[in-house]
Amino acid sequence: MAKVATKYFVTEPYSVSEKGLNLERNQVSESIFSLANEYMGVRGTAEEGISADTLRGSYFNGIYEYAREDVPMHYKGIVKRTHFMINSVDYLAVEIYADGERLDTAKCTVKNFERSLDFKSGVLTRSFVWNTKSGKKVLCVFKRFLSMTKCRRAYQKLYFEGIDGRVNIQVNCILNGNVLHWGDHCYWEHENSGASENLIFVSCVTPTTNQRVVSVQKIQTTATFNGSKSGEYYACNNYSFELNEGQSEQIVRYTVNNAVKNIKCSEEQDRLNAIEELELSANEGFDIALKNSVEYWNNFWNTCDIEIEGDEENQQGIRFCLFQLQQTYHGYDPENNIGAKGLTGEAYSGHAFWDTETYCLPYYLLNNPVAAKNLLIYRYSKLEQAKQRAKMLDCDGACYPIATLNGNEGCTLWQHASLQFQPSTAVVYGVWHYALVTGDEKFVKDYGFEMVYEVVKFLLSRGDWNASKTKFGFYSVMGPDEFQMMVNHNCYTNYMAKRCFEYFISLCSRYLELCKKFGVSKEFLAQIQRACECTYLPTDKSGMIYEQHEGYFELPHIDIHSIPVTDFPLYDNWSYDRIYRNDMIKQPDVLMFMLLYNQSFSKQCKLANYEFYEPRTIHESSLSPSVHSIFASELGKHDEALKFFGFATRMDLDDYNRNANQGLHTTSIAAAWMNIVYGFGGIRTDGEKLVINPTIPGIWKSYSFKINYKGSIAKIKVEQGKATVSVIGKPLTAVIAGKEVTVSSVYEFAVKNP
Amino acid sequence: MAKVATKYFVTEPYSVSEKGLNLERNQVSESIFSLANEYMGVRGTAEEGISADTLRGSYFNGIYEYAREDVPMHYKGIVKRTHFMINSVDYLAVEIYADGERLDTAKCTVKNFERSLDFKSGVLTRSFVWNTKSGKKVLCVFKRFLSMTKCRRAYQKLYFEGIDGRVNIQVNCILNGNVLHWGDHCYWEHENSGASENLIFVSCVTPTTNQRVVSVQKIQTTATFNGSKSGEYYACNNYSFELNEGQSEQIVRYTVNNAVKNIKCSEEQDRLNAIEELELSANEGFDIALKNSVEYWNNFWNTCDIEIEGDEENQQGIRFCLFQLQQTYHGYDPENNIGAKGLTGEAYSGHAFWDTETYCLPYYLLNNPVAAKNLLIYRYSKLEQAKQRAKMLDCDGACYPIATLNGNEGCTLWQHASLQFQPSTAVVYGVWHYALVTGDEKFVKDYGFEMVYEVVKFLLSRGDWNASKTKFGFYSVMGPDEFQMMVNHNCYTNYMAKRCFEYFISLCSRYLELCKKFGVSKEFLAQIQRACECTYLPTDKSGMIYEQHEGYFELPHIDIHSIPVTDFPLYDNWSYDRIYRNDMIKQPDVLMFMLLYNQSFSKQCKLANYEFYEPRTIHESSLSPSVHSIFASELGKHDEALKFFGFATRMDLDDYNRNANQGLHTTSIAAAWMNIVYGFGGIRTDGEKLVINPTIPGIWKSYSFKINYKGSIAKIKVEQGKATVSVIGKPLTAVIAGKEVTVSSVYEFAVKNP
Repeated sequence: MAKVATKYFVTEPYSVSEKGLNLERNQVSESIFSLANEYMGVRGTAEEGISADTLRGSYFNGIYEYAREDVPMHYKGIVKRTHFMINSVDYLAVEIYADGERLDTAKCTVKNFERSLDFKSGVLTRSFVWNTKSGKKVLCVFKRFLSMTKCRRAYQKLYFEGIDGRVNIQVNCILNGNVLHWGDHCYWEHENSGASENLIFVSCVTPTTNQRVVSVQKIQTTATFNGSKSGEYYACNNYSFELNEGQSEQIVRYTVNNAVKNIKCSEEQDRLNAIEELELSANEGFDIALKNSVEYWNNFWNTCDIEIEGDEENQQGIRFCLFQLQQTYHGYDPENNIGAKGLTGEAYSGHAFWDTETYCLPYYLLNNPVAAKNLLIYRYSKLEQAKQRAKMLDCDGACYPIATLNGNEGCTLWQHASLQFQPSTAVVYGVWHYALVTGDEKFVKDYGFEMVYEVVKFLLSRGDWNASKTKFGFYSVMGPDEFQMMVNHNCYTNYMAKRCFEYFISLCSRYLELCKKFGVSKEFLAQIQRACECTYLPTDKSGMIYEQHEGYFELPHIDIHSIPVTDFPLYDNWSYDRIYRNDMIKQPDVLMFMLLYNQSFSKQCKLANYEFYEPRTIHESSLSPSVHSIFASELGKHDEALKFFGFATRMDLDDYNRNANQGLHTTSIAAAWMNIVYGFGGIRTDGEKLVINPTIPGIWKSYSFKINYKGSIAKIKVEQGKATVSVIGKPLTAVIAGKEVTVSSVYEFAVKNP
Repeated sequence: MAKVATKYFVTEPYSVSEKGLNLERNQVSESIFSLANEYMGVRGTAEEGISADTLRGSYFNGIYEYAREDVPMHYKGIVKRTHFMINSVDYLAVEIYADGERLDTAKCTVKNFERSLDFKSGVLTRSFVWNTKSGKKVLCVFKRFLSMTKCRRAYQKLYFEGIDGRVNIQVNCILNGNVLHWGDHCYWEHENSGASENLIFVSCVTPTTNQRVVSVQKIQTTATFNGSKSGEYYACNNYSFELNEGQSEQIVRYTVNNAVKNIKCSEEQDRLNAIEELELSANEGFDIALKNSVEYWNNFWNTCDIEIEGDEENQQGIRFCLFQLQQTYHGYDPENNIGAKGLTGEAYSGHAFWDTETYCLPYYLLNNPVAAKNLLIYRYSKLEQAKQRAKMLDCDGACYPIATLNGNEGCTLWQHASLQFQPSTAVVYGVWHYALVTGDEKFVKDYGFEMVYEVVKFLLSRGDWNASKTKFGFYSVMGPDEFQMMVNHNCYTNYMAKRCFEYFISLCSRYLELCKKFGVSKEFLAQIQRACECTYLPTDKSGMIYEQHEGYFELPHIDIHSIPVTDFPLYDNWSYDRIYRNDMIKQPDVLMFMLLYNQSFSKQCKLANYEFYEPRTIHESSLSPSVHSIFASELGKHDEALKFFGFATRMDLDDYNRNANQGLHTTSIAAAWMNIVYGFGGIRTDGEKLVINPTIPGIWKSYSFKINYKGSIAKIKVEQGKATVSVIGKPLTAVIAGKEVTVSSVYEFAVKNP
């Protein structure tokens, strides 16, 4: 698989640090040290700038623009123009001079460089000693964090301490709205700016989507204020001070960013609104805000931590994952979703994919049901756009986009946007899964039913019948496995559609009043019933192995181990069409629906399909190994389970995919969590009853995690040979190691790895 | 099929005329009245310009440029940047003023307007009476033609005659190099220009492809020369004269265009070279050149005419077709090929497609074997590019492009360029067909063998074996039918590849010395042999109906007659993916290989396949109806044969496809010829012996055509009830109406339509 770890960061339990400056790694580090609070995100760049590969990124969830040009191929149903999350105002920018020398760690002499992200406070700290050309030494310590609860607030502290010689320091604190997206184009229009000792601000708008970001900032310092400057996209205050040995000075910057997705009032009003909050923030002060942040993260780790004893690297890895996932999304606003790279970069355009419902939703379901609900309400709020997308595809109902920010399809490659329907079936799956785990009937009535109905309408109209009208299924589709492009009866699509039909039929029988309200006709239900009964699921002769699509078994075979390492990634080295004409698969497809509806398949069936498909899977998707690890655990293949777990938690920390410089693999993080909780932890949530059936890798002393299931909070701790389920509050009923029990305090049971 | 004739032109035996000015039809007429001589082409635009929809087009075969931008999707094997034939110097441009009023037939008062193209002289004449604002009347007669033998020469005569009142006429004769391609961008760079009483010239170059066109012009007139003007892209001479009633004046423009595909010398040298020829042309004079043109076309009609008695419209239609095809290509230069729209417009980029070998080659084979040979030599000269294309697709050998001018793939849509291989198999078919009809062994040795070998290498490497290694064939391909996009075991591709393998094996057994020269190994031949034996040709259970591709029979069925007329063209009205997921086909696929290797299939088999596929064919390709007409004739379905013949000869004259404004469907013209000669004429050339087995539509009195078969010239005349084969020179051996005969003068036989 040609994936090799680059060990670089210090292994610590609740933080990640780099010691010493490594310019070649700079852009990867910027991704790793990203901060976010769902509302906004900022990469871990040097605030003062650096002469090295750098991606200065500041993003706001849901703030986006359209591409400047249409794609050249115009046919109905093909997206003409994409949209993407845009790089926005840089509110941490600073220019620092010591005796006239501009600080640039790539050019200046700096010692004891350290950059560290603390998962227990959410604070990113960068510190070093600057040996100036004038022969002085200054200790610089720069801290920043974003409030997780008052999400428009950002904090930055620049601390300077004289070590050797008297030095004159000049600092320009800058707000810069003229930021380039992909280093290429500023998508913002300047609206207003201003600077005074008391306040600097910049307001910009997006020309096409008509969104606004107002950034207001107050600066607290005892340094000398030398004046202000402002202009287009720009506001700046200048300070200076002198330091003798042992003397220190600090500059604290309080920022409030008001990101307005739908402009309703004047720039002035949006600015005054931000300034009001800015006053509160500055009055509260840096230290109290920091204390609140520590408290927030403390609470988080108390409820969501995964502890691994005996494996420091995975311990750090999984905590990094949990920290970053929580930063990206915790259910603050149902208008937000989870981009494939979170708020850490411009790659993947900030788009949300089907990853949200299939990989991320389980994490939130078992840790933060409100967030899980909000993710589904996001899809409900985009139902109109999904209906329009279905119309563009000459279909009925609602088709959810493969990649989107605003609910419209953002993917301009027709072969994905017009052929992949797992986002639509995933939304139905998400509703079903959410209802099953939470028992939230109100949600189903208020939102779920309608979404399921519209998706089912779409599926019925996009599906078709074979020539003899005996088999229903999907023609010219791409399943989750993107290496089989345009096939008929993709088993995943057919199976998921069948389950959607079944779920809708069951909802209709349960909620007659909703059938009436939405005008579900008997004829329609009869059509659904017939399609459901006749949905074709191709298998081998034994009926045990599902055929990924009709004809898959007959495809030319490739021994994937015969492919030279230098051929990876295949998309870069193989002719595009070559990828699509053999039995190699990129990621689980049959195994994927077997994961989602795990308890609907016998162990024998899962084993047969795992053993057939795993050797054909090249895992070019970062989501693939975790799914295989979960199956390997269930099927008693513990060595394989550990092998596939391999880089799940440290994919970005160790830059396995060689592209962490572009941002984090945020949705893969959720797969890492699933790998532990569903894989080793043996949790199953796809049935009426919770299942807990853990195993433990031989090299671990213990591991533990917490879940919130129908209001019961349980901690599951697994050691070699035994495990305990400890319940707080409401008793938990579950099938534990094959036995149904109700646990009200602590239940211990044996764990044996065969 | 939503195709309706717009009868507009006067029906005449050897010309096409419009009477009266019809501004709405202007751009269609410009296409119809196009002139060309293979070297260059010019649309039938008004030389003085017109305020109406117009496409002023002047093209040179093989003069092209690259697009200004890459396509956004970058994967290996996907063409980044296309190339296309560009609009070039306008050497007919003129500004005409009468008493200060600028001539513009759309704005001025003109009477008795007539535009006429004479197939017997190649002259386009436009005439009208101009009632000037100053109250005078002037007869204007403008003539133009291109030399068919001295192909760089163009002629234009502007004739004016006073009818009523004394009028002052001013004429600017212009060379204009600043022409827009697609009305959007001038792809030329100015190089030089000059104007004097004796000569005007403009030289331009292409910036990327480094080609040059030098246009030099000499003007003969007794009008007063008032001066010259030249500048960037521009040269102009001004003349004036006065006319009383009955007085006339004329301006004759002699142009030589030197289109330099590979610049080897200075602009000056290329210009002097052109001027040298210009002197000869002007000295010879307009009338002698015209006489030569008449002679050329006279010869052409003597050898290539098709006469139809009893159907004036098809008589005119087929002669228009033959005239335009001869203008487009007659084998003057093996560096030229036949663009889908010839030299009559910018649509289809001037690209040659597989149409050349499958539709056009038979026409040249039976009328002009030298041209047929040159078409194949064109492919030989592009073998290097085809090898590079194969490499881009991770394959061996040579892959011929789906659309090209310079030998490189010009199609940026990967789904066509990377999945359609009929151009490659068509080249091999062309070699085989050429050798069969001409018996030209030297060609096979000098060119054919190598091309066949390289294509066979490609096919072997692009093809693959099913999982159990029992079936060889092509995976992820698109056959000729473009409504089944990405399929396995497309029967056409598999069958054609099998025939390529067989042909190569037979060549190897015949030409051992060539096997040695090209290093054809025994192992390779064994591989080819095995692939050939195992090539999979899917059929129905009876084995009689070929399955267009594996799984085609199981596709959802559409009743094509249920599709509303308003849905056509489907590419404009259906979601792109919707076109590809049912059993509707755009054009013949199984029937296509049955046409190419007609005598390899039983009549019963052809009937079964015709009756299965015809009702599933929507004929969105202009090449489709003729193929069906040919089969209908063979299968005794004479009414259907006539129905499909319907618009074959008059597709552009009657603008059936509503897009003749963009240029003529030049390769469809060849299909119209095949429709008569192979269809009604019952000619078959795919066996060792020529077959002649004619029928005649009941509404025709008679029809006749000539063929050149292995050096024998035969005229076949078919009347109701009987037919005659008249041979000039070498006796002709053929299977005529089922009986093998050798005809040395005239052979008469009965024709009965069952």
